[in-house]
Amino acid sequence: MRVEIRALIAEVDRALERYLPAEEAYPEEIYRAMRYSVFAGGKRLRPLLTLAAADIYSIPRQHALPVACALELVHTYSLVHDDLPALDNDDYRRGRLSNHRVFGEAIAILTGDALLTLAFELLARETAHLFPAATVVRLVQEMAAAAGAAGMIGGQVVDLLAEGRKVDAGTLDYIHRHKTGMLFSCAVRSGALLGEPSPGDLAQLNSFAEHAGLAFQIADDILDIVGDLEVLGKKPGSDLRKQKVTYPAMFGLAEAKRKATETLNSAKAALAPFGDKAGQLLVLADFLVNREC
Amino acid sequence: MRVEIRALIAEVDRALERYLPAEEAYPEEIYRAMRYSVFAGGKRLRPLLTLAAADIYSIPRQHALPVACALELVHTYSLVHDDLPALDNDDYRRGRLSNHRVFGEAIAILTGDALLTLAFELLARETAHLFPAATVVRLVQEMAAAAGAAGMIGGQVVDLLAEGRKVDAGTLDYIHRHKTGMLFSCAVRSGALLGEPSPGDLAQLNSFAEHAGLAFQIADDILDIVGDLEVLGKKPGSDLRKQKVTYPAMFGLAEAKRKATETLNSAKAALAPFGDKAGQLLVLADFLVNREC
Repeated sequence: MRVEIRALIAEVDRALERYLPAEEAYPEEIYRAMRYSVFAGGKRLRPLLTLAAADIYSIPRQHALPVACALELVHTYSLVHDDLPALDNDDYRRGRLSNHRVFGEAIAILTGDALLTLAFELLARETAHLFPAATVVRLVQEMAAAAGAAGMIGGQVVDLLAEGRKVDAGTLDYIHRHKTGMLFSCAVRSGALLGEPSPGDLAQLNSFAEHAGLAFQIADDILDIVGDLEVLGKKPGSDLRKQKVTYPAMFGLAEAKRKATETLNSAKAALAPFGDKAGQLLVLADFLVNREC
Repeated sequence: MRVEIRALIAEVDRALERYLPAEEAYPEEIYRAMRYSVFAGGKRLRPLLTLAAADIYSIPRQHALPVACALELVHTYSLVHDDLPALDNDDYRRGRLSNHRVFGEAIAILTGDALLTLAFELLARETAHLFPAATVVRLVQEMAAAAGAAGMIGGQVVDLLAEGRKVDAGTLDYIHRHKTGMLFSCAVRSGALLGEPSPGDLAQLNSFAEHAGLAFQIADDILDIVGDLEVLGKKPGSDLRKQKVTYPAMFGLAEAKRKATETLNSAKAALAPFGDKAGQLLVLADFLVNREC
């Protein structure tokens, strides 16, 4: 199983390599900075979700790749901006210096902007000849909604305002569902939308994505406490030091682990109607929660 | 003429009012910050260009407004990020405190991100029922390309790297054509694309937009030198203090004025094939260069 995931990640990397302009393009500072963060060893979870969801509908992998890569660009932009001194002020990301520590704050801000913009360009440019235009319009609409103020950015805002404050379970839930959950769901939905799913199928896949996203987030919070510097690429306990609100901090480690397992099982249960066709998504769901880094 | 432009601006403002989520939406910090910068007294030049170009093809104004507003959101996001301490470090914008001075740097970064994302959402959501899906996909593609690293952001990068350095006329030209020019052209093209123009028509309108954008930029640089604090909303001479490269700084005020007039005339000449139908665009071209603020 792991071998298959590694092969898929390599395929996503090759596609991103094709879609990102060369470092030598003018003005090279921005392209170097964009490539630095896109090729920083990300696990490509969102693209993998898109490809696995598209696989249910037997969409050729090459056709789903531009959509998968667009989601990775949105994710990468959010990390570049999140790491900025005004936000999380992180000097490291996946064991390497963060974008602004290498290129400066100004270029890092513009790098995030450029990656977000490229995501939409990719979506419109690389899928228009493969799918009905109405499908492409829907993908743009869903990706923008998931990434926007009512989605991922809303989660970042609430997370930011919650730092150092005592927050309730409802607020923690909002942060999880928006900061990570919305883009996770969008990744799954986008892959499925390529196959023109029935509303019922889409609802099932949405339920899978919401549960898988939450399980991933709780597992990620747990890793921050018990993880190892080398595999984590950052010091464990960084959430704690930054007074980030997390699931284990609120409910304890044992309850967090129980909740992660329970939520993972709910995610898998939502895939039952798809039988063998959801094989890739099932493998991925386990990978999300049981990865070591 | 001025009365007509003022009425159009009011119409754009009302449309933006409809498209921006209410300040009370959760999390309200981001919606307040988005609205603060969108309703900061902008002249709505890009939306006006879109509406005037759409008018050539008799597109109902209500149908062109979402496209026009999407361009204004992209412009506003670029101003919010440009004003940040790491970039231009401007405390004021149009006579009011800049976004980060009111809401803090973190929220200002996220506000820019949210406005850019909303632009694409608006484009996909509000035009899908009015125009062929293929047209909407093309609008998304063109807006992303114009705003991205090979467009507006590329111009910002080169402008940033040029500060305090001696640059040649070619670099100044690159900055002008990308930082302002690409979005100007996109505004005109987007309005025209709604009417499914012939390639020849589109090329003429593109030529108009490129010349009009350049004339506007030179006029803007001149205003920074000779303008009045009250109408400018910022201190004159700010480009000079920030060692920004400008047309008058490079060629002198008299030559800059001559060049602005010459470029404006080239812009107008490109509209000749459209006759009376380009009336709104002609009025706008004069307004771009001869406005007092």
